[in-house]
Amino acid sequence: MEQNIRVADMTPGQHIQGFYILKDIRNKTSSKGSPFLSAKIMDATGETEAKMWDYSGPLNAEDSGRVMLVRGEVTEFNGALQFIIQRIRPAEAGDRYDVRELVPSAPIDQEAALSEVREILASMEDGEYRTLCQAMLERHLDSFCTIPAAKSVHHAFRSGLLMHTLNMLRAADFLAGLYGEVIDRSLLLAGTFLHDLGKEREMVRSELGMVRDYSVPGMLLGHLYMGAKEAAELAQEQGMAEEKAMLLQHLILSHHGQPEFGAAVEPQCAESELLSLIDLMDSRMEIYAEQIADLKPGEFSGKIFSIGKAVYRHHNSE
Amino acid sequence: MEQNIRVADMTPGQHIQGFYILKDIRNKTSSKGSPFLSAKIMDATGETEAKMWDYSGPLNAEDSGRVMLVRGEVTEFNGALQFIIQRIRPAEAGDRYDVRELVPSAPIDQEAALSEVREILASMEDGEYRTLCQAMLERHLDSFCTIPAAKSVHHAFRSGLLMHTLNMLRAADFLAGLYGEVIDRSLLLAGTFLHDLGKEREMVRSELGMVRDYSVPGMLLGHLYMGAKEAAELAQEQGMAEEKAMLLQHLILSHHGQPEFGAAVEPQCAESELLSLIDLMDSRMEIYAEQIADLKPGEFSGKIFSIGKAVYRHHNSE
Amino acid sequence: MEQNIRVADMTPGQHIQGFYILKDIRNKTSSKGSPFLSAKIMDATGETEAKMWDYSGPLNAEDSGRVMLVRGEVTEFNGALQFIIQRIRPAEAGDRYDVRELVPSAPIDQEAALSEVREILASMEDGEYRTLCQAMLERHLDSFCTIPAAKSVHHAFRSGLLMHTLNMLRAADFLAGLYGEVIDRSLLLAGTFLHDLGKEREMVRSELGMVRDYSVPGMLLGHLYMGAKEAAELAQEQGMAEEKAMLLQHLILSHHGQPEFGAAVEPQCAESELLSLIDLMDSRMEIYAEQIADLKPGEFSGKIFSIGKAVYRHHNSE
Amino acid sequence: MEQNIRVADMTPGQHIQGFYILKDIRNKTSSKGSPFLSAKIMDATGETEAKMWDYSGPLNAEDSGRVMLVRGEVTEFNGALQFIIQRIRPAEAGDRYDVRELVPSAPIDQEAALSEVREILASMEDGEYRTLCQAMLERHLDSFCTIPAAKSVHHAFRSGLLMHTLNMLRAADFLAGLYGEVIDRSLLLAGTFLHDLGKEREMVRSELGMVRDYSVPGMLLGHLYMGAKEAAELAQEQGMAEEKAMLLQHLILSHHGQPEFGAAVEPQCAESELLSLIDLMDSRMEIYAEQIADLKPGEFSGKIFSIGKAVYRHHNSE
Amino acid sequence: MEQNIRVADMTPGQHIQGFYILKDIRNKTSSKGSPFLSAKIMDATGETEAKMWDYSGPLNAEDSGRVMLVRGEVTEFNGALQFIIQRIRPAEAGDRYDVRELVPSAPIDQEAALSEVREILASMEDGEYRTLCQAMLERHLDSFCTIPAAKSVHHAFRSGLLMHTLNMLRAADFLAGLYGEVIDRSLLLAGTFLHDLGKEREMVRSELGMVRDYSVPGMLLGHLYMGAKEAAELAQEQGMAEEKAMLLQHLILSHHGQPEFGAAVEPQCAESELLSLIDLMDSRMEIYAEQIADLKPGEFSGKIFSIGKAVYRHHNSE
Amino acid sequence: MEQNIRVADMTPGQHIQGFYILKDIRNKTSSKGSPFLSAKIMDATGETEAKMWDYSGPLNAEDSGRVMLVRGEVTEFNGALQFIIQRIRPAEAGDRYDVRELVPSAPIDQEAALSEVREILASMEDGEYRTLCQAMLERHLDSFCTIPAAKSVHHAFRSGLLMHTLNMLRAADFLAGLYGEVIDRSLLLAGTFLHDLGKEREMVRSELGMVRDYSVPGMLLGHLYMGAKEAAELAQEQGMAEEKAMLLQHLILSHHGQPEFGAAVEPQCAESELLSLIDLMDSRMEIYAEQIADLKPGEFSGKIFSIGKAVYRHHNSE
Repeated sequence: MEQNIRVADMTPGQHIQGFYILKDIRNKTSSKGSPFLSAKIMDATGETEAKMWDYSGPLNAEDSGRVMLVRGEVTEFNGALQFIIQRIRPAEAGDRYDVRELVPSAPIDQEAALSEVREILASMEDGEYRTLCQAMLERHLDSFCTIPAAKSVHHAFRSGLLMHTLNMLRAADFLAGLYGEVIDRSLLLAGTFLHDLGKEREMVRSELGMVRDYSVPGMLLGHLYMGAKEAAELAQEQGMAEEKAMLLQHLILSHHGQPEFGAAVEPQCAESELLSLIDLMDSRMEIYAEQIADLKPGEFSGKIFSIGKAVYRHHNSE
Repeated sequence: MEQNIRVADMTPGQHIQGFYILKDIRNKTSSKGSPFLSAKIMDATGETEAKMWDYSGPLNAEDSGRVMLVRGEVTEFNGALQFIIQRIRPAEAGDRYDVRELVPSAPIDQEAALSEVREILASMEDGEYRTLCQAMLERHLDSFCTIPAAKSVHHAFRSGLLMHTLNMLRAADFLAGLYGEVIDRSLLLAGTFLHDLGKEREMVRSELGMVRDYSVPGMLLGHLYMGAKEAAELAQEQGMAEEKAMLLQHLILSHHGQPEFGAAVEPQCAESELLSLIDLMDSRMEIYAEQIADLKPGEFSGKIFSIGKAVYRHHNSE
Repeated sequence: MEQNIRVADMTPGQHIQGFYILKDIRNKTSSKGSPFLSAKIMDATGETEAKMWDYSGPLNAEDSGRVMLVRGEVTEFNGALQFIIQRIRPAEAGDRYDVRELVPSAPIDQEAALSEVREILASMEDGEYRTLCQAMLERHLDSFCTIPAAKSVHHAFRSGLLMHTLNMLRAADFLAGLYGEVIDRSLLLAGTFLHDLGKEREMVRSELGMVRDYSVPGMLLGHLYMGAKEAAELAQEQGMAEEKAMLLQHLILSHHGQPEFGAAVEPQCAESELLSLIDLMDSRMEIYAEQIADLKPGEFSGKIFSIGKAVYRHHNSE
Repeated sequence: MEQNIRVADMTPGQHIQGFYILKDIRNKTSSKGSPFLSAKIMDATGETEAKMWDYSGPLNAEDSGRVMLVRGEVTEFNGALQFIIQRIRPAEAGDRYDVRELVPSAPIDQEAALSEVREILASMEDGEYRTLCQAMLERHLDSFCTIPAAKSVHHAFRSGLLMHTLNMLRAADFLAGLYGEVIDRSLLLAGTFLHDLGKEREMVRSELGMVRDYSVPGMLLGHLYMGAKEAAELAQEQGMAEEKAMLLQHLILSHHGQPEFGAAVEPQCAESELLSLIDLMDSRMEIYAEQIADLKPGEFSGKIFSIGKAVYRHHNSE
Repeated sequence: MEQNIRVADMTPGQHIQGFYILKDIRNKTSSKGSPFLSAKIMDATGETEAKMWDYSGPLNAEDSGRVMLVRGEVTEFNGALQFIIQRIRPAEAGDRYDVRELVPSAPIDQEAALSEVREILASMEDGEYRTLCQAMLERHLDSFCTIPAAKSVHHAFRSGLLMHTLNMLRAADFLAGLYGEVIDRSLLLAGTFLHDLGKEREMVRSELGMVRDYSVPGMLLGHLYMGAKEAAELAQEQGMAEEKAMLLQHLILSHHGQPEFGAAVEPQCAESELLSLIDLMDSRMEIYAEQIADLKPGEFSGKIFSIGKAVYRHHNSE
Repeated sequence: MEQNIRVADMTPGQHIQGFYILKDIRNKTSSKGSPFLSAKIMDATGETEAKMWDYSGPLNAEDSGRVMLVRGEVTEFNGALQFIIQRIRPAEAGDRYDVRELVPSAPIDQEAALSEVREILASMEDGEYRTLCQAMLERHLDSFCTIPAAKSVHHAFRSGLLMHTLNMLRAADFLAGLYGEVIDRSLLLAGTFLHDLGKEREMVRSELGMVRDYSVPGMLLGHLYMGAKEAAELAQEQGMAEEKAMLLQHLILSHHGQPEFGAAVEPQCAESELLSLIDLMDSRMEIYAEQIADLKPGEFSGKIFSIGKAVYRHHNSE
């Protein structure tokens, strides 16, 4: 009996016991009339089909997404792995497992990343923007460090928002220098830090922090509106000058670039224009990174829905 | 010397004294080198070219849009009227004239219209929506009654917003009955009343209430965002239930129907869908009314920019 | 043995005999080589899977859509109901059943609705338009009262056209008053009544009145052209003045609003503009009604193909 | 005094008497207060500015487009020709001039072209289509031979429709052979001959046959609908089989190819698809011919509105 | 035992031996755990499902697309044919079969078609264009005669490019005469011949000449660029005048007509405009031909992805 | 008499002699019949209207764009400056003036910029890419340092291409580090350096290096195609590996990002995606910089054609 083998390392014939997440649980009936459980087991490295024969409960669809202690055997069926469960129970208080090994997470050091965000915020020349951003960070600290940046598409994993925001802050910092003639560095950095904070309320997450769906306010109001409104309220509390508060709201409301991509208004100052391009650039680069990871050099992906085209992994980039 | 002849009634040869608005004032020099003033005089009935020969000031471009006491003669030049000014001075305290005769206004009885708006608001079944709308009306009473509904396009005259809102409330009241199965009457009426209140901050107006331009917040934030945010803040003060406050914001944010027409989010409940259609319907009908007023039966207009097509006045509709 | 249990009320274990429609009939062979019949049984309340084991005919795919007398047992398979047929024969002359209980129908009183349509037509001020509409109603009386308004999307049930047209006439009647300055009430009502009559020829219906498909003329010519042409021919027979006949045709040809939504020409008079908006409004409200009926308060639908977005059922609208 | 010099051949200093069309007539007043007439004189070869000093009538804007007997002198003003009129009167009964020299006409032999059209129609294998086309030709003979194919854009000259239709018939005849497997030659030729006949009612022409504007039915119904309806009525009179009549209507209704280019329905059979492409091809080739005529080899035109791009005349095509 | 029965002629019960292509080979395991081979067998007339029970290799997915000598029995499963393989081996040197009977090919006489292409090229008046085209033909002779014109959509069979190019040359030859005023015949014919030659490098083909996929250069550079570049290099070797070489490249780069259809530049001379229309016409007519072949008169196809609409086969075109 | 006053510093009353460029020269006739010259005089700081009374030649339209020695007086006409020329002659060999003071130039130190470009090229890890770029730089050295990056829109001044390319190289260098996981630094830098080199042949320049128009090859082939082809030919000469040469061409062909913005193919690897975004970013930032230079804080520009919206200059960015 092997312990906690990672899903990506499973091979037929192994007898395994370990903690996994059970997804897509369904109670079914075989053609001979006997009940069984169909599901997927997953951890941060991947997922595979699972069956438990002659099982009629109590676990059911409502338990999907929970951590389970599972014992069973890895088999093969029609060319794919299938995990045959022999015993199963939900994880309990006192069980010892590491959530980060079960849920896909950003490939970053979370503490170091947070420190770097704090440093960049501390470097802002404009005191009002700096104070507001720092207050906002403390208010949303936990979710800022852990939520994904999207439901799917890109950075759709634990700490995705932190990784996405930090990358964008680094780019914004450099580009504020390159285009120093037209860019107010503090405004650009503040808008960059704040632009996706409204996503916390836009998504419904499972107890393990994975996005289950868009929330009702997320659908009816959107994260641009919610983020801009919260920033405006805090700016007013802090007595920020009206134009500066307005510019912050403008950057958040316009960061999707164009109405057809969800922008509530179009960028109309240099900082909002640049912010929308940095956001586009970072999400595109992450889409390429995620796609290329699954390709061999010389291969094309299939058509990717979010960008409407296939991508190529060339030999140089090994 | 005739007094206060309406611009639409002027004919060559008249000697006139009266109060008019002077627009587009420019100080020019003739080919012989003598200075003169070029402008337009207007009242609620129309406008015509005006010249004052051998005039070098003090009136200049900055005085455009002010009421003046003017004396002069109506002449004709190249087939069009031209008013030759002989004496001119800005209106002063104590002068007696009626602004409504000088500035184009909605063809409605303002007091009766306001009463009807109050009645419809008072008829809302939902106490929370009713209270919020009534508070909002008192807060914005003056501008609600006097501002235009747009810079141009439709209802671009004094009290245009009042006229537009009342017409829409009447339609909303009827349609809430016709589609009673899916429409919450109070929500629809509240959204209808509130939908354009953000326009007060979106436009810069002259002292006479005519729209001079979009304001900076109007350009960078838009009236949908500003209106939704104010409604949300008042709803919170009043302790309105969260979903109800969210629905109000959703109706305001989505009332342009589609992102390419400026909606911050798309309508996703029956009331927001219907509100966006009532708004479209009322603005279209007003565009037709304004265009048809200038056509003879059997005539087509030229192509109208805001709707991208010409309109026809048929003989039935006389 | 229970009689004529409605499909929506079936539960596993019931032994049932009754009249149902059989859809999607297919003759199949099991993995052991024995023939069986696979189909769906439906009535106005819903549909469910059905199987008849060891059945090799004579019923086959060509009998899909016919009324059958069925006896069998309700079972459950993989979490869904499955009706196991034991005996089956097509309905015969003399069988007693009510088509309205088998085919989904508009939730209206057909006779009352027709009376109201007649009243509104009779109220038209313009005698020529009134006469034409009344003649057209008598000519198409049966199909006007029974056909759906569409193959799918909205009002896709028996008497859907009657329900859709009546709702639109009510709205047109009210709005002709609200916009009396630019709307010729008789023209608007006539166009509203006539706008979808061409649908009779556009669709191929089963013997029970359900739309099976678009007809060949429906695909190659469209209901706008066919409806306008028939109205024009009747108008000519009645000696209607040329402009009035032309306006009727224009309203029919343009009622889809924009070329990309199927309009043969764009609306260019106030009545055609308003008609196209009333049509859009009534179809949208019906789509919401049909969707919301399947949702619980607080729930979103999935993305709806015809409108390209999801819709929300809020708690107010219970 | 030279007689009837063509406008394209005028040079400064000539004293001329001749028949010309006067366009864009306006009565103006000089800066010194004396009245004069401003207009353009044109014939089939071109047009130039014209002035008649100290002229106050009776000719005025309403006389634009009429043939005049003019005497005057060719001068030059700011680098362009200017015709100074000394005497002028409208042409009278008995005056001898050739309309074809005054109005731009298709560069074809009208009689030969008509003969060729008749031959192609006579060659149609299908008797019903042939009869209908021949009857339609006789009914519209005069206008078919003389009207332009468009108000502007392409073939916007006398006999433009004849030239356009003949070219398309030639192409259709050849392509019906090349794609004989999928093309019914008679149907394609019939659709080609009929496709633009509705243009006769779509345009308002001056007494000289030049298009002044779109007609009211042209705007509200369009030439596709009017042409299809007339063909349908004649087909019915002749007892044509229903599918064949339907196909003819389909070809006419769909010949603009796509809804956004004005097609009432999309082409859905091989003949309608091909007809729409032949129409596109012939209009494009004529646009190039008209543009290239004004260019020197090696030159680009400016951006042409109807096709949204510039065109190049290369050296090969001399 | 029957020999080499065509797939389209197979009926249940036949025992057959013959050469076929095996596609989509997969090694599977039955629910009882025994291995089997699942595949399709095809020849030029069609394809059908095939199974080989208790088969565990050596053939596998990598052998898909190869010619095999197969022995087995035709059976029926769930209303469709299923070929049960009893013996199988790959074709070997010395086996006698005709590739043209196994792979779908253009319905043309390849030798006659090539002769006609040679004749048309030889008829070009311009010696430089003629020389270049003839050299290009010899250089690509084999692939020009055998490759498909596309991966799917139209002419997606052996010798499809030859058939497509010849049809277009015939049309170009005729239309160069019809539009002789604006069309340089040699340039149009040269562009037509060259326009798709870049497709040779754009597609990856199996050993039997069927397109397996787009190649990497095909995806990253496209056949327009590759074709234009090769033509330019050969023109330079031959010392062709610069404008003429530029025009050839322009025709190739623009033959998709519009950027959204893949044109690298828009057509801007008469020949490039016409070439893009001839290409569109020939591909559309082939799509209709391929679709109509599968329809009965009076039937509509389903919606066809490449043209976004259904097509109709009428009774005339039998 | 003042010498070489910059156009931006001219005030009414000055008597000036100096070297200026004369643009838009036209020979006109006054209303009294006397000839005069109308033109604009410009230097790097701006331009103003100019007149020379009683002048009939020899200078004419063909001399537009040349440097002239001019003497005259600054006057005012209708609120704008007007330069009255008293003497004028074209600059001659031996005249001493600095072209950089007459033609608008990039606000950079040309030598330093070129050095930095050289350094970045020298830092490329990949020897093949480095060699090719360095060879290309030497081949195009002069034009690379002096031509504008566009005819208008952005960087439309002397050395605009150098400034644009250097800025993009700096950004590419930084971003290649930030996205090191997916970006091949050498490929990105090579593509960035090469992307606009085809512009040299795309534009026709005056003797002073200002863009007069697009060239014929620029219109018919485009700078993407010409640049990619030249790079490919040089790569082949140098024996570069095929995939690497293909990637370079792909980056150049796709750098406009989308077909509707002129991309010949869409970006499909991480480096081409990023290059297209860096190009978009640098051109946008320059548009903002050029627009904001003409605005006061708190002001909006008018609608800018190239980006379809107005831009705002806020108070922060002073």
